[in-house]
Amino acid sequence: MTVNTHVAADTQAPPITHELARFVAEHPSRGWSDAVEHEAHRTFLNWLGCAIGAARHEAVDAALAAVQMLQPAPQATLAGRPERVDIANAALINGISSHTFDFDDTHLKTIIHPAGPVASAVMALAEQIGSSGRQVIDATVLGIDVACRMGNLVYPQHYDRGWHITGSTGTLGAAAACSRLLGLSAQQTQMALGIAASQPVGLREQFGTMTKPFHPGGAARAGLMAALMAQKGFTSSPRALEAPRGWAQVVSTKYDWNEARDELGQRFEISFNAYKPFACGIVIHPSIDACAQLRDQGVTPEQVQKIELRVHSLVLELTGKKEPQDGLQSKFSVYHGCAAGLIFGRAGEEEFSDAIVRREDVVALRRKVVAVVDDSIREESVVATATLTDGRVVTVHVEHAIGSLERPMTDAHLESKFHDLSDPVLGRARVDQILAACWKLGQAPDLRGVLGLITPA
Amino acid sequence: MTVNTHVAADTQAPPITHELARFVAEHPSRGWSDAVEHEAHRTFLNWLGCAIGAARHEAVDAALAAVQMLQPAPQATLAGRPERVDIANAALINGISSHTFDFDDTHLKTIIHPAGPVASAVMALAEQIGSSGRQVIDATVLGIDVACRMGNLVYPQHYDRGWHITGSTGTLGAAAACSRLLGLSAQQTQMALGIAASQPVGLREQFGTMTKPFHPGGAARAGLMAALMAQKGFTSSPRALEAPRGWAQVVSTKYDWNEARDELGQRFEISFNAYKPFACGIVIHPSIDACAQLRDQGVTPEQVQKIELRVHSLVLELTGKKEPQDGLQSKFSVYHGCAAGLIFGRAGEEEFSDAIVRREDVVALRRKVVAVVDDSIREESVVATATLTDGRVVTVHVEHAIGSLERPMTDAHLESKFHDLSDPVLGRARVDQILAACWKLGQAPDLRGVLGLITPA
Repeated sequence: MTVNTHVAADTQAPPITHELARFVAEHPSRGWSDAVEHEAHRTFLNWLGCAIGAARHEAVDAALAAVQMLQPAPQATLAGRPERVDIANAALINGISSHTFDFDDTHLKTIIHPAGPVASAVMALAEQIGSSGRQVIDATVLGIDVACRMGNLVYPQHYDRGWHITGSTGTLGAAAACSRLLGLSAQQTQMALGIAASQPVGLREQFGTMTKPFHPGGAARAGLMAALMAQKGFTSSPRALEAPRGWAQVVSTKYDWNEARDELGQRFEISFNAYKPFACGIVIHPSIDACAQLRDQGVTPEQVQKIELRVHSLVLELTGKKEPQDGLQSKFSVYHGCAAGLIFGRAGEEEFSDAIVRREDVVALRRKVVAVVDDSIREESVVATATLTDGRVVTVHVEHAIGSLERPMTDAHLESKFHDLSDPVLGRARVDQILAACWKLGQAPDLRGVLGLITPA
Repeated sequence: MTVNTHVAADTQAPPITHELARFVAEHPSRGWSDAVEHEAHRTFLNWLGCAIGAARHEAVDAALAAVQMLQPAPQATLAGRPERVDIANAALINGISSHTFDFDDTHLKTIIHPAGPVASAVMALAEQIGSSGRQVIDATVLGIDVACRMGNLVYPQHYDRGWHITGSTGTLGAAAACSRLLGLSAQQTQMALGIAASQPVGLREQFGTMTKPFHPGGAARAGLMAALMAQKGFTSSPRALEAPRGWAQVVSTKYDWNEARDELGQRFEISFNAYKPFACGIVIHPSIDACAQLRDQGVTPEQVQKIELRVHSLVLELTGKKEPQDGLQSKFSVYHGCAAGLIFGRAGEEEFSDAIVRREDVVALRRKVVAVVDDSIREESVVATATLTDGRVVTVHVEHAIGSLERPMTDAHLESKFHDLSDPVLGRARVDQILAACWKLGQAPDLRGVLGLITPA
């Protein structure tokens, strides 16, 4: 089958590879507001909790078993695991574990999960070269800015076409962050971005398989190696991002160059990062939130005859699985999310376990949920209407789900989420120490204060 | 800038991921003609000579310096170098060196250079797990079949769009080959192809930089790791190649599914692999060939008053540089190629060196060459007419240049090319031993007979 589409090449694109490289290399350390600085700490902390929480998952086991075939040098720490591997593979494994529960951060404008590629690469490299906490935060902010700006530039067509935008932009973010950490010049950083541009990682077809969390891991590894190669003199096209046969024009039919340049160094995309209260795709969050609110209003599963969700079409497109058979599938089921919200009032990793997904009362309630597409409802909203067996009708309208930019998780929420994820792996006392170290990361002389705490005894 | 293109998704694609995986896992060892078997040896030999020849290039130095930052385990041999690195990075480095001179094999239907990704991954993995020569040849034939069939499936739109098709299909070929070598089941191989599908490597914008030869290397590494991950239980979409958001529909607007299936196991794409006799773009080859034939007929540079080449317009469009200043520029000069053919009777890497390009007699002869566009002449042909100072006129008509499928390089030609590339690195006596070992690869108990010879003392 051939679909003929003529895509005109834009030969007049501005030199964004050069401009972003100069920005990454030369922007002053901590050259942003206190709010941005605090958001960077929240992003790092949330990422680390997710990585520790999923450290024992079979996806991480399988990837690590493959990496062990390389007999890697014990250079770098793996979150929540006793093994050590080389820095490239540490970036890979931590990237996988941080996204395995689908519980990590989301740049809401683009649905990019930016910390996975960026922080995974940064932590591994920083451990090896002894970077300060200050340098780690700087690299994270700048790397996330590059990934998300490139995402803005091609979103939504790039995502619609089938790219998992977290991995396809993540290589660029990781390369930028590692270039900063290595102290590369603007010209070297430009080469690193170019090398990374040739390695977009991630197809949406993989959603529901282990290869989905592989994407941020693979991107972290590719970006880290791109920066090392540039440091050693490896060359790439200086117009790799914008040329007619460069990254943007190859992976997208939309490319808004201004997104790379507008307010560069003034507006930081990490400001638009959000954190998930629920361990599943973000489009289900309003529905879970609504059902948890029904529960708060006294509605019990036994009373329910039917729950109708009025949702944006994307919700069913991404998470329309009616009868999930296991934990992984349940993350792509708005029906299951709704049932979890009403039964448990929450939807952490536990509520997406095989056992819960197959529990009789959960299955029964899930089957009572009906989703109706209504594109007057936005993606971040839902109208949930419970019809009870006694004839009563209770409606909850969620305009913005908890965890959105309008209703962000508080620092206390983030700590609580971190505990839920990490206490089973490391114990509560240790996790309290990790949290304290994370909040002070920007002042730490190096990462040892964090790294020494995140591996099990 | 936004170009709106609506690309219809094909939801009815046949299950080619499954079919190719079953083929790779289950096709009988040496289940092909003697001609295919011999072509596999030629492909391996040509690839190895290219890798050895470029082993000391600065691109290889830079990539290896980056890899050394990982303190890799000394698992695998690098062609033409004393260092040893882990198998994933050996696949990377050998893939880079094999494509650095742009002198490797070409699947002419798609312009894929298939041995770079496939053989680089196979040799590294085979060394580690002790595969037999028979297994190496089997894996190479099957891996190249997968890469080139997927190339046929998306060519030319995929290439036109800007993908360097060698790297974007190479991950799939390397994953297939390594799956075969590991003895993975059809189901595991399907997962390996899926993991690899998320990692297409290569933008055409990188042509002229070190990142171009990085593409087959990066593809080899990605494919090898994909196979190891699948072996350890890592999962991916079983429809990763054909689904609406899978590989083919994401990276191309053309996808002819039959290319993956027609005559599978009967027609082998390695049969359409060709080898370059000259170290430059293929459109100059007929002119070099013609001038070497003039030399064979006794025409000497001193006798020449003028040489007229009648060529297809593409020849001047791509290689019309009249006065090349250095080695790199000379690869884009049909005039230089013609002079080299007449003076030296050959045009290897040496004849495109700065020193030769600037030599007085070469410059003088180059200036006597005139190229005339004549679109009744095909791209693969040339009519070369030498007018001599004594008034004689000698004409050579090359219908198909040496190295084409119609006039393939003989085994003796390939040996001579191998010597030209490798003797400066390893010495002639050693290279004779390597050639002998390569021709008998299919009968070798393991790769040690080759590997023990390809590193400098």
